[in-house]
Amino acid sequence: MQKILSGKTEVKVRFNEADPLGIVWHGHYIRYFEDGREAFGTKHGIGYLDFYKHGFVVPVVNIECSYKRSLKYGETVTVETIFVPCEAAKLKFDYRLYKSGTAEVVATGSSVQVFLNRETSVLQLINPVFFEDWKRKHNLI
Amino acid sequence: MQKILSGKTEVKVRFNEADPLGIVWHGHYIRYFEDGREAFGTKHGIGYLDFYKHGFVVPVVNIECSYKRSLKYGETVTVETIFVPCEAAKLKFDYRLYKSGTAEVVATGSSVQVFLNRETSVLQLINPVFFEDWKRKHNLI
Amino acid sequence: MQKILSGKTEVKVRFNEADPLGIVWHGHYIRYFEDGREAFGTKHGIGYLDFYKHGFVVPVVNIECSYKRSLKYGETVTVETIFVPCEAAKLKFDYRLYKSGTAEVVATGSSVQVFLNRETSVLQLINPVFFEDWKRKHNLI
Amino acid sequence: MQKILSGKTEVKVRFNEADPLGIVWHGHYIRYFEDGREAFGTKHGIGYLDFYKHGFVVPVVNIECSYKRSLKYGETVTVETIFVPCEAAKLKFDYRLYKSGTAEVVATGSSVQVFLNRETSVLQLINPVFFEDWKRKHNLI
Repeated sequence: MQKILSGKTEVKVRFNEADPLGIVWHGHYIRYFEDGREAFGTKHGIGYLDFYKHGFVVPVVNIECSYKRSLKYGETVTVETIFVPCEAAKLKFDYRLYKSGTAEVVATGSSVQVFLNRETSVLQLINPVFFEDWKRKHNLI
Repeated sequence: MQKILSGKTEVKVRFNEADPLGIVWHGHYIRYFEDGREAFGTKHGIGYLDFYKHGFVVPVVNIECSYKRSLKYGETVTVETIFVPCEAAKLKFDYRLYKSGTAEVVATGSSVQVFLNRETSVLQLINPVFFEDWKRKHNLI
Repeated sequence: MQKILSGKTEVKVRFNEADPLGIVWHGHYIRYFEDGREAFGTKHGIGYLDFYKHGFVVPVVNIECSYKRSLKYGETVTVETIFVPCEAAKLKFDYRLYKSGTAEVVATGSSVQVFLNRETSVLQLINPVFFEDWKRKHNLI
Repeated sequence: MQKILSGKTEVKVRFNEADPLGIVWHGHYIRYFEDGREAFGTKHGIGYLDFYKHGFVVPVVNIECSYKRSLKYGETVTVETIFVPCEAAKLKFDYRLYKSGTAEVVATGSSVQVFLNRETSVLQLINPVFFEDWKRKHNLI
């Protein structure tokens, strides 16, 4: 059976991330997604530097965020990052942001990344071998 | 006949917006969208401070961006912001980013904003009168 | 005897904080100082929101940073924040940034803040009473 | 006679640069300094990419900023960047920020940069030849 692989991390809202309305400026959520992706990568051995070591860079080609509740300075947000299996040579994540310690959803979102050869910047049309191995190891295929 | 209302602005890529790959970090495009929205608002009299003056704040509730080409430090990007008419009490924009002086599309995206009463933060379910007037004046309804 | 009051916090370098040289852009260190100040404030009961609760905002009026070593994506920096006693109605901190787990100094710096009445924005020429009390309690005067 | 070489550029305050107090967060001024330095470099042929082309990168080793007045969203700031001649192998600038169209000083500051060989990262203890030539051409030595 396919497993669902996810990770969680906590991010404290910085004073300088809140805007004149006193709430976190919407663009900063993209950083929180990246914090979530990093924590996922560190936990499951599939971080940015793992791809790099295997000869790939993984630029984001699509990002989406829906904002449900505002976040204020002093609050902490829990970023849940969920790996979304897909057959194409892409790396997909869904994100769920909660006010820490509650079930209150602050935002949801998603990202898509592709694989480029790190030397030539050429787009990889098939999944890197080490990534296929990683998915197999985690029962994701 | 319905008009298409749009605006254009130029943004110079800052050194501090480029990441270790030498290209603009994807999260900064959300700033470029905001720069585009601002230029549109200034040009057509429907900026953030116009809404504020009429008693509203207009938080972003959805954002989406698709990345087509990378941007490097030293380059200039043209942000085209297109008003997307809609009947609901929402403010919708599409964005097209070009390498300045070319027809090369760097990214496309969209944003959705809602109207909150600036004092009570209550969501407005119908369009503000001044916004309806603005749309009529510009042959958008 | 006067005590030295300080605090330490760890900051993980974000991918999006590194510039095209692969090292953290110098402007981001100002955020690390703020992270240090926050951790100090939380630890010792003298954070931004404590001042706010007592009717003050505490804008930064001077900042200084000397850079000794570069920081790379993937590294963690330890921010040591040291309270600098002063008689004037000011809040002074020194900062020392280390590569975490080492004695290697990455940067040193300082900040000066003043007290403004949060309603009137009027500059306070004498130290707020609660701040004097706080200093006494911590043997800083 | 020694000339004073300077440049001016205008920066529009972005909504996302203002903090919960409605004023520009102090860390963003470091970006404005960089905008000023860039404009100076473009005007006088001594920009970041000019150094790069000659084999150098020029990291900032010290930065200082004194804040005199606050800046609000919607305002425009004029950044005046003044070259500070010095004999050591360093690049020094002073900055003066004004509310555009006025003589009101918003902030003053300074930066110091050094020259590193771009391949080896070795610190240059004497001024690059092209930089000496540039100074001579502009009557700065």
